[in-house]
Amino acid sequence: MLERNGHGGDLTTAVELFGVPAREMLDFSANINPLGPPPGLKDVLHKEWTGLVHYPDPESRELRTAISQKYNIEPASILVGNGAAEVIDLIVRGFKPGRVAVVDPAFLEYAEAALKAGAEVLSVPASADDGFAIPEEALLAACEEADLLFIGQPNNPTGQWLSREAVVRLADTAIAHNTILVLDEAFIDFFEDEKELSFIREAAFSRHVIVIRSMTKFYGIPGLRLGYAASHPDNISFIRKLQVPWSVNHLAQKAGVFALNQTEYETRTKRLVAVERAWLEEELKRIGCLPYPGKANFMLVRTAASGPDASELQLTLGRQGILIRGCTGFTGLDTRYFRIAVRTCMENERLIAALRNTLCNRQGAEGTDWTSR
Amino acid sequence: MLERNGHGGDLTTAVELFGVPAREMLDFSANINPLGPPPGLKDVLHKEWTGLVHYPDPESRELRTAISQKYNIEPASILVGNGAAEVIDLIVRGFKPGRVAVVDPAFLEYAEAALKAGAEVLSVPASADDGFAIPEEALLAACEEADLLFIGQPNNPTGQWLSREAVVRLADTAIAHNTILVLDEAFIDFFEDEKELSFIREAAFSRHVIVIRSMTKFYGIPGLRLGYAASHPDNISFIRKLQVPWSVNHLAQKAGVFALNQTEYETRTKRLVAVERAWLEEELKRIGCLPYPGKANFMLVRTAASGPDASELQLTLGRQGILIRGCTGFTGLDTRYFRIAVRTCMENERLIAALRNTLCNRQGAEGTDWTSR
Repeated sequence: MLERNGHGGDLTTAVELFGVPAREMLDFSANINPLGPPPGLKDVLHKEWTGLVHYPDPESRELRTAISQKYNIEPASILVGNGAAEVIDLIVRGFKPGRVAVVDPAFLEYAEAALKAGAEVLSVPASADDGFAIPEEALLAACEEADLLFIGQPNNPTGQWLSREAVVRLADTAIAHNTILVLDEAFIDFFEDEKELSFIREAAFSRHVIVIRSMTKFYGIPGLRLGYAASHPDNISFIRKLQVPWSVNHLAQKAGVFALNQTEYETRTKRLVAVERAWLEEELKRIGCLPYPGKANFMLVRTAASGPDASELQLTLGRQGILIRGCTGFTGLDTRYFRIAVRTCMENERLIAALRNTLCNRQGAEGTDWTSR
Repeated sequence: MLERNGHGGDLTTAVELFGVPAREMLDFSANINPLGPPPGLKDVLHKEWTGLVHYPDPESRELRTAISQKYNIEPASILVGNGAAEVIDLIVRGFKPGRVAVVDPAFLEYAEAALKAGAEVLSVPASADDGFAIPEEALLAACEEADLLFIGQPNNPTGQWLSREAVVRLADTAIAHNTILVLDEAFIDFFEDEKELSFIREAAFSRHVIVIRSMTKFYGIPGLRLGYAASHPDNISFIRKLQVPWSVNHLAQKAGVFALNQTEYETRTKRLVAVERAWLEEELKRIGCLPYPGKANFMLVRTAASGPDASELQLTLGRQGILIRGCTGFTGLDTRYFRIAVRTCMENERLIAALRNTLCNRQGAEGTDWTSR
C-alpha cells in the first residue's frame, strides 16, 4: 500500500510498488508547490553547505527575525521546528491535553500526536452531504469539552476552511473555557487572500491560539524540513523546552531566510494554483469525478459509484508513474475518495489524460473530446 | 555566556559575545572532525538538492541498508534520527524509565531528556582524584536501582571509557535486573580500536542494550543532523512509534550513505586525531595545564590553580576568535575546567600559542621556547 507510512509523497515505497524509477514519477500524492523551490535557492544551498561543519543555530535566530519581519510579530512569539510535524508533536506533548478534538477527516498527525501523548481523541465529523464543510457549531461545543482543538485552515484533505468570523468565535470560546485552539495554516500561503485569512498576528499575542505554518509545501522543500509555530511568547518558550537541541538543520534555516523574500515567486505560485485548480475541477467533472471545491493546492475527489474505486485508480496510475493519494486512511472517507495536488499545466493534463483513459475506457466512451485544451 | 544553549559550538552566540565574524572563528568548543566533511560530499549535496522537492524517505531505507552492511547488522535493528539528540530523547520517552542513572560529569542531554520525560535522575559521580574514570562498581549498583543507564563510551567531556569486559558485566547486570543500558558511542569512531570496543553488533540483538551513534561529529556535518540507534528490532520499532514523521531530512540521508564508504578518510581522521591529541597533551602540560588523557577527538583540561580560570580564558580567547568550552554546566566540574576539540596541526598550534600568551604572560615567562615545533 502506497500510504504504508500514513501519508502521501512516499516515493521510495512508490518505486517498490510500481517499479517506475523515482525520477520519472509524477507525484500528485504530496501537496508541494508545483513550481519547485524558488529560483536562487539552489545557489543559497550550494553556498551554505560550508556551514554544515558547525552546529545549526539552536535558536534559529536569523530565521525567526526574518519571519518576524515578514509578519510583523515578535521573534519571541515564534518556534521554528523540524517541519510542521515536529511543531504539532511539541504542542501536544507540551500542553498535555486530556482530550484533543479533531475534525474528521483531517491531517492524520493531529490524532497521531494526541494518541502518542496519551490524550483521548474527540472526533468532530464533517459531513459528506455538506461537502465536508468544517462543522462550526460542533467545534464550538467541542471547544468546551476538549482541552485542545486542531483545525486545518484549510483542512487537509478536504480543502475546507473557516471564515475569519468563525475563527474569532472559536477563539472566544477557547478563551472562555481555557482551551488551546491550534490553527494549522500549513497550506494557507497558497490562498490569494492569505493575508486576510491568516491568524498569525493574533496568535502571536494569544495564550489560547497557536498558529502552525509550514515552509516546505509552499517553498517546495519538503526534503529539507521546516515549519514553525506562532503564539504568545510564554507558550512558545514553554513548548520549546521539549524540543530536541539543534532540531532544525542549518540548510533549512538558511533556505527559510531566503524563501521568505521571494515575493514574485509567491505571487506566481498563488496565480498558478488558482488557474490550474479551476481547470482541474472542470476536467474532473467532465470525466465523471466529483472534485470538492476550494482554494488550496490540493483537492479531494470522489470517483463515480459505477467505475473503479480510488485504490484501483492508484494502482493503474501508479504503474504509469503517476501517484495519487488514496484516502481510506482518513476517518470518514472510503475507497471512493482520492486526493491530488494541483500541479503545472502539462502535469495536470497528463493526470487528466491518464484518469480519462482509465475511467472512460471502462465506462464506455462518452463522447469526450480527447484533444480538448 | 557562550553555553547559553547548554552546549558548545554555538557560533551565533559566540559572534554576539565576541564580535568576531563567524567565518573567522576557530571553534574548539564543538567536537567535530577537524578535516571537515569527506571529500566528495559537497558534490553529493549539490547533486541531491533536486530531491528536496520530495519528502524524505520516512523509513531512511537506503541509509539503514548502508549502515547494516557496514556493521553487519539487520536494518530492522537500526533507527535513524535527526541527530543523536533525537535518538536520546526517543529512548527516554519510549521506555519511560522511573529512574535514569547518568555518570557525572557527562553529556547534559542524558539528564535533560530524562527530566523532560519526568524521570528521576540518579547521579553516579566520577571522581576527579581518579581522573574521572567511569565508576564501574557504582554503575553496577546503579544498574540494579535504575530503569535505564546512560554511559558515554567514551564519556563526554572527560574522554574516559569502559573496557569491553566492564561493559559485558554491566550488560549482564542490566539483563538480570531488566534495566536498559544505553551506550552512547557518538565519538567511538575516532578511536583507532573502534571495531574492538564498539558494542553495535551486540546491541543489534539485545533487548537490554542500545547503542547510539552520531554521524555528524566524525563526518563533520553537525549542521545537517544525523545519528542512529542500534538495538533489538522490537526495541527499535517500539521507540520509532514516537518519532515525528520525516524527522531525518533528505540531504542527511544521502550524506550518510556517502560518508559510510569513505574508508580512506576514516583512517586519515583517526590517525590525525591520535597524533594531534598527543601533541596537544604535551603542549598543555608545558604551559601549566592538566589535560586528561584519552583517545577521543576532545579533551578535558584543568587550569592551574594560580592562573586565570576557564571563564577568563574563554573570554580572552573568544575575543581572538578562538572558542573553548567552559565546563561549569557539567555536574562535578568547576570554573577550572574547559574542554577542547582536537583539530588540525596549524589550528592546534594557534590555540596553544593563544593559551601560552594568556597563561604565561600572567604567570611570568617560564623560559618556554616560543618557536617550538
